Amino acid sequence: MESLRVALGNRAYPIHIGAGALDEAALYAPHHRGSAAIVSNDVVSPLYMQRVRRALEASGARVIEIVIDDGEQAKRWENVDRICDAMLAARCGRDTLMVALGGGVVGDLAGFTASVYQRGVEYLQVPTTLLAQVDSSVGGKTAINHPRGKNLIGAFHQPRAVISDTATLDTLADRELRAGLAEVIKHAAALDLPFFEWLESRIDELLARKAEAIAYAVRRCCELKAAVVAADEKESGERALLNFGHTFGHAIEAGAGYGQWLHGEAVAAGMVMASELSARLGLIGAREMERLRRLIERAGLPVRGPAMGAARMLELMAVDKKSQAGQLRFVVLQSIGRAEVRGGVDEAMVGAAVVAASH
Amino acid sequence: MESLRVALGNRAYPIHIGAGALDEAALYAPHHRGSAAIVSNDVVSPLYMQRVRRALEASGARVIEIVIDDGEQAKRWENVDRICDAMLAARCGRDTLMVALGGGVVGDLAGFTASVYQRGVEYLQVPTTLLAQVDSSVGGKTAINHPRGKNLIGAFHQPRAVISDTATLDTLADRELRAGLAEVIKHAAALDLPFFEWLESRIDELLARKAEAIAYAVRRCCELKAAVVAADEKESGERALLNFGHTFGHAIEAGAGYGQWLHGEAVAAGMVMASELSARLGLIGAREMERLRRLIERAGLPVRGPAMGAARMLELMAVDKKSQAGQLRFVVLQSIGRAEVRGGVDEAMVGAAVVAASH
Repeated sequence: MESLRVALGNRAYPIHIGAGALDEAALYAPHHRGSAAIVSNDVVSPLYMQRVRRALEASGARVIEIVIDDGEQAKRWENVDRICDAMLAARCGRDTLMVALGGGVVGDLAGFTASVYQRGVEYLQVPTTLLAQVDSSVGGKTAINHPRGKNLIGAFHQPRAVISDTATLDTLADRELRAGLAEVIKHAAALDLPFFEWLESRIDELLARKAEAIAYAVRRCCELKAAVVAADEKESGERALLNFGHTFGHAIEAGAGYGQWLHGEAVAAGMVMASELSARLGLIGAREMERLRRLIERAGLPVRGPAMGAARMLELMAVDKKSQAGQLRFVVLQSIGRAEVRGGVDEAMVGAAVVAASH
Repeated sequence: MESLRVALGNRAYPIHIGAGALDEAALYAPHHRGSAAIVSNDVVSPLYMQRVRRALEASGARVIEIVIDDGEQAKRWENVDRICDAMLAARCGRDTLMVALGGGVVGDLAGFTASVYQRGVEYLQVPTTLLAQVDSSVGGKTAINHPRGKNLIGAFHQPRAVISDTATLDTLADRELRAGLAEVIKHAAALDLPFFEWLESRIDELLARKAEAIAYAVRRCCELKAAVVAADEKESGERALLNFGHTFGHAIEAGAGYGQWLHGEAVAAGMVMASELSARLGLIGAREMERLRRLIERAGLPVRGPAMGAARMLELMAVDKKSQAGQLRFVVLQSIGRAEVRGGVDEAMVGAAVVAASH
């Protein structure tokens, strides 16, 4: 077991990483006051609900279980309401600890519900997908979707701890594993050239789920993300770099209909679009663009978006949270491992980048 | 014009109080970055929307208007969604300032929406009812209701400023004015004996809307509340004293059906119940109980709750946010002007207090 720390003053919290972590009562004990509500989905719950329940009970908590549907479309208000209703029915007070057990969808939904239930209760992230372990469980971004776009309603609400059991990745579907690798590649491409090089040499081991490679990728992503979040919790600057590929990716997800493309798949194609844009802005050359595209492709991820047209993509991107004063902003690459934010990008150039990486 | 300050470090904010304040462009100018969304209801909007719009435009903001229905039942998710949708349609980004123009319902609803729109935008409170000016606009508590109880879904989200135009109270319906006086009496009864004595001598002037008396009452309540909020923003201690009358009051509101009793009316009857409980706990005597009851009655407010029975009231109170570890907590009076929080109160005693102050 390894433990990192997200340095956020009196809201600092640990990230525990290791096989078997979710069974450790001692990891839950410091964070509850006798009452916990575990939120999971109907795929993860049969696998891990009872183990997490036992660990919480062993640490002295009274536990209720709340199971929602699986998939991106679960990130909607009706589920927030359902979770609140189940907690109210069980007389959960402000002192109840919420536990988000599952992937990014469960973490975003349960975390957002924790931020609004009785004006806010504390919560733990227990991520069971690669995507959640390397990215979404860390940093306190929570949200539900809106028909006009992804994650448009939400809150910054930091967990009290992240408990990442890497053994849960053994049960992950191949498609989910690959989707998680998109966020791993994102961290490397945006922030860390040596990690990108490591990925180029280890991508096959990751796809083969070699435990040592997986554990290192999870830890390195958490280290990178923890540092960025500690420096810029509310995304007024540096944290925006972690959105590399996401403005395009969110538009792909919304345009294709939530759940058609996995988030990581959309981010993969979105990163190719962002690198096409970076090249058009004269920041990177064809070789760097190809190098990123190649790694994404080796990870078994899409390198092209759906055929929805540049105009529709631009329309969907206009509601993205990254827009300011009506102006779109994009995270682009200065080089592999060094991203930057660019405002005032010409729409025609963005459209050309979309078209170049679409079916 | 007078200005107070809520001392919350880097989130400190001013409360501007005075006749004509809502027309002052200079009060809005420091708080927006060129874009504002005014949220109001269909009663307040015809009276003040265009004046606030002009002041915002004079300060350089592009403005959109969003009008919701009037009344407590407006505090529901559908309205949060509608406001978000209107803002998304108008391409409002994270840099848009929300402006809550109206009473407590508009402030709670718009403030909550501001806390979740794109993970949080800044907002101003421009309260136009006595209740909102003396209480709900200050302190950052925002919420919507849940069928199981009032304000059960919400956030602590401090405004950037409160602009209280006391001249708006001239257009307030008598019933609304009286409902506001309930919160004025609450501040005095819970925290400030000299203010309570002042109210006993000036209640008729307040009911007659004498400008000088109203202005003093607004200012004194804001002073009291600002100090409490600065000391205990998230209600882990002292701030709970401001809930005097509210555990009972929320149950009355929920039990009677939202909108049947105004919040202030329910708090009025709730304060009588809380003083009945205080007497049963041996804290205050019959004379103090009668003194509070008399002031509430002189303010034209109900001193009895509806005939719904103690069992139903207890059931409704059990979901109140003030409950901890399944145990109800009540704000009771040690004496007039000195409230305290009591846990572990006997249910039968609570029921008896309810019955003593019910029809």
